[in-house]
Amino acid sequence: MTCTAHQLAQLLNAEIIGPHDVTVTDAQPLDFAEGNHVSFVSEQKNFKALRKSSVGVVLLGNDLKDEIPPQELEERTFLLVENPLDSFIQSIQYFRPQRELPEVGISPKAIVSESATIGDETHIYPNAIIEDEAVIGENCRVMSGAVIGSGCRLGDNVTIYPNVVLYPDVIIGNNVIIHANAVIGADGFGYRLQEGRHIRIPQLGIVRIENDVEIGAGTTIDRAMAGETVIGEGTKIDNLVMIGHNCRIGKHNVFASQVGFAGSTTTGDYVVCAGQVGIADHVHLGTGSVYGAKTGVHTDMEGGKTYLGAPAEPIEVAIKAAKILGKLPDMRQQLRDLSKRMKQLQTQLDQTSSSESEAA
Amino acid sequence: MTCTAHQLAQLLNAEIIGPHDVTVTDAQPLDFAEGNHVSFVSEQKNFKALRKSSVGVVLLGNDLKDEIPPQELEERTFLLVENPLDSFIQSIQYFRPQRELPEVGISPKAIVSESATIGDETHIYPNAIIEDEAVIGENCRVMSGAVIGSGCRLGDNVTIYPNVVLYPDVIIGNNVIIHANAVIGADGFGYRLQEGRHIRIPQLGIVRIENDVEIGAGTTIDRAMAGETVIGEGTKIDNLVMIGHNCRIGKHNVFASQVGFAGSTTTGDYVVCAGQVGIADHVHLGTGSVYGAKTGVHTDMEGGKTYLGAPAEPIEVAIKAAKILGKLPDMRQQLRDLSKRMKQLQTQLDQTSSSESEAA
Amino acid sequence: MTCTAHQLAQLLNAEIIGPHDVTVTDAQPLDFAEGNHVSFVSEQKNFKALRKSSVGVVLLGNDLKDEIPPQELEERTFLLVENPLDSFIQSIQYFRPQRELPEVGISPKAIVSESATIGDETHIYPNAIIEDEAVIGENCRVMSGAVIGSGCRLGDNVTIYPNVVLYPDVIIGNNVIIHANAVIGADGFGYRLQEGRHIRIPQLGIVRIENDVEIGAGTTIDRAMAGETVIGEGTKIDNLVMIGHNCRIGKHNVFASQVGFAGSTTTGDYVVCAGQVGIADHVHLGTGSVYGAKTGVHTDMEGGKTYLGAPAEPIEVAIKAAKILGKLPDMRQQLRDLSKRMKQLQTQLDQTSSSESEAA
Repeated sequence: MTCTAHQLAQLLNAEIIGPHDVTVTDAQPLDFAEGNHVSFVSEQKNFKALRKSSVGVVLLGNDLKDEIPPQELEERTFLLVENPLDSFIQSIQYFRPQRELPEVGISPKAIVSESATIGDETHIYPNAIIEDEAVIGENCRVMSGAVIGSGCRLGDNVTIYPNVVLYPDVIIGNNVIIHANAVIGADGFGYRLQEGRHIRIPQLGIVRIENDVEIGAGTTIDRAMAGETVIGEGTKIDNLVMIGHNCRIGKHNVFASQVGFAGSTTTGDYVVCAGQVGIADHVHLGTGSVYGAKTGVHTDMEGGKTYLGAPAEPIEVAIKAAKILGKLPDMRQQLRDLSKRMKQLQTQLDQTSSSESEAA
Repeated sequence: MTCTAHQLAQLLNAEIIGPHDVTVTDAQPLDFAEGNHVSFVSEQKNFKALRKSSVGVVLLGNDLKDEIPPQELEERTFLLVENPLDSFIQSIQYFRPQRELPEVGISPKAIVSESATIGDETHIYPNAIIEDEAVIGENCRVMSGAVIGSGCRLGDNVTIYPNVVLYPDVIIGNNVIIHANAVIGADGFGYRLQEGRHIRIPQLGIVRIENDVEIGAGTTIDRAMAGETVIGEGTKIDNLVMIGHNCRIGKHNVFASQVGFAGSTTTGDYVVCAGQVGIADHVHLGTGSVYGAKTGVHTDMEGGKTYLGAPAEPIEVAIKAAKILGKLPDMRQQLRDLSKRMKQLQTQLDQTSSSESEAA
Repeated sequence: MTCTAHQLAQLLNAEIIGPHDVTVTDAQPLDFAEGNHVSFVSEQKNFKALRKSSVGVVLLGNDLKDEIPPQELEERTFLLVENPLDSFIQSIQYFRPQRELPEVGISPKAIVSESATIGDETHIYPNAIIEDEAVIGENCRVMSGAVIGSGCRLGDNVTIYPNVVLYPDVIIGNNVIIHANAVIGADGFGYRLQEGRHIRIPQLGIVRIENDVEIGAGTTIDRAMAGETVIGEGTKIDNLVMIGHNCRIGKHNVFASQVGFAGSTTTGDYVVCAGQVGIADHVHLGTGSVYGAKTGVHTDMEGGKTYLGAPAEPIEVAIKAAKILGKLPDMRQQLRDLSKRMKQLQTQLDQTSSSESEAA
């Protein structure tokens, strides 16, 4: 797709400032955009990044119209819009229309148990496997190589990408997306040591994933020993995340890549974990708590706060401590100097006292 | 399944204290159990968690019979048993019987090389792939989408979950379980820099997994450059763990999720790594050593001790250091105060000396 | 394969020192080699490891001929060669010849779209899936269970191991190797919060992997929101690594296992990340920068330097700080002692001053 700035302005219902005839071939983020690309500026502070960018056409909020630096006005075309991110997404979709997912019905090359139930408008791709008594809702896609274990129950509008494995009896709500090679419902990691050997504790619970959850590629969510491992409504989980058995994750949580939850941990709503965070077993993360990258949590955490470090501290404490860490060598030297001067002072004082005594 | 406390007591051969007629519908961990669930208390200290639980029926060790808090006696039914965890597992199995794994024989939809050997009572699921010269023992299951590479040798009672990939020539003992999407025997990560390019070092060794090992979903264990990568008997490995090439893991180790071992590292027996631990290459972890979550090890570690931190320290040292970290800002302030007071003292002393000299 | 040291010397065109008739059955790393194995010593400092090894036959660089410790000369056979690592690799290949990958053509059990294009000498294994309009070059292998999404374009000599998933429109250069269960091109992790719900930002960009890249088992590389996620020529990525959307990784980088890159991060060339390193979004790692295991980066990093710690510091600073950490309890005690002595000194000085005053 290719158009002019003028045509794009029409498409986006935008006011145009600057040359109308620039050719636009793609929508790209500011850092990577070139002269015939469109990008967006949504905040005053983005003008700094804009300065470094080669972008030719810029989507800008109406409210920032009078803030455009004069130099920028000379060099680029601006399209004034209500919501720059919305318009940017619309532009991306214009230049790179999303590939439609194939509609294959129930492929004759899929392997579907006779006791499974498949809803209307649901597509089962070649080599997908639907085991006994599984129930799949309407308008779902189960892609190639995915395995839907016996007794699983999927809602409507569920997308299961290739090679995902659902162990038996996993329950999945509506509008759930599970990316390639994720594994839901594998046995929890539980053993007990008997006569020098680790004996498996049977893992007979299930996993329940509520509506509107998205789960990243390669992520693993283990089934409960008893009861349920739960991922609450609207929660979004990135790639290669581990959720241990019997965890109960609240609603609208966001977990970035490589986060790990040990077993039986619970979270409130709107909890956010940045990459590589680790959470110990049997703790609770309060609603609205946020964890910076690589944070390690081993105890209950109060909601509404941001934490960092291992062990986790309120972020302002952690940052303060981190800053001082670099000064430790100096502090040590200061200690030595003080110690030395103290000795000198002592000597001087002793001499003074004694000479005074003599004088007396 | 549903029963009364009385019926459950009979099933578990338990002495019953409290109401016999409570309906029990499921077995659940204490934290999540409700009024018509059964749970268990195995130690004195669990009574605290029991206080917060809504559980109706409690499995309790005979030895704790006289320790039950009076308030608990009023509110719940207790079933006295020899081993509460055992009885709890028995209860789980009663309420949620394990789904039997299908017995499909060698599915006509599996792809099995003519040169492969399959033992009696072994089940090869649809879409599983058994390559040339692979040998699989008796009473095994190779599930859908799993690939058993050429020349692999599996013992008896081995369970390979869906979409697991065994590269060629992997050797697996008896009673081994490998969960979905794990990859065993991929090439070790070895290159050498020649004229500005990283050139592959061929990885021609194998992986050998001994008896009674369990390997988690998405875990990767690389083949050796030469010789063997070994996972010792009875070792249990959780999800998303990485074991690098030429590692030799001892017997009965336990590695939690997201642990990573770089290459050529060895461990003794009964080594335990908590989540997200990282171990450098060419080091040795002594028998019975234990590593807290997120610990980073870059040198040989003495057995029988517990370590924490990155770099790893004996846990008591690490905890002490972590506690003091929070006090660093205070320490810095103290240093400044001391320095200031030292100067004042010096001034005072100099004046004293000089006035004394004058006096003299 | 079995031979004598003499025969091996002939094969490797090596000068032999010591017994010619030792039987050699395998090539093994020094740490694991036994009496009838061959191993190698490539640097003076390896003689220390040799002392602890049971190896019978040693490949040694000609330049180290006169450095062999006398005791070693008595105990082993040495084969003098130009490049010990080269000769060791040659030996491994002699004792354990690499298994040839099967040549199956386009298997009738593969599922190949009629609109796909497959180059000459390319092998598509049973159960592999090639979707619409995919283009695959010459001399490639797409193994069982791998899914090549619609519109993907692969160059020549590409090896896709089993159960790899390429989402649609991924572009792959020549000589690329992607190990089992890796996922390339899954949707980037981008949402915006609207009325309390996380709404997906469409991810309509692609992934482009340049020539000579190798990608480890279970690794995930997300597609860009707009534009491209790029892995530069010659870069090598280990298992279970995460590369977020819109990252642009430079040429000849090396990332060890479990490394994570958040979105929109860029790197120069020859960047090295050890295991479990985490890199924040929108930062740049300079050419030739190196990151020790578990390092956490949240800001732009200058090239040509080695960093460690979270937050990352130049390695010498980080090591210094780590060493002092262990001394914190001592430092704290010293501070207390100094404080106490300061008080004593003050008291003594006050007394002196006052007695002097009196004396005066």
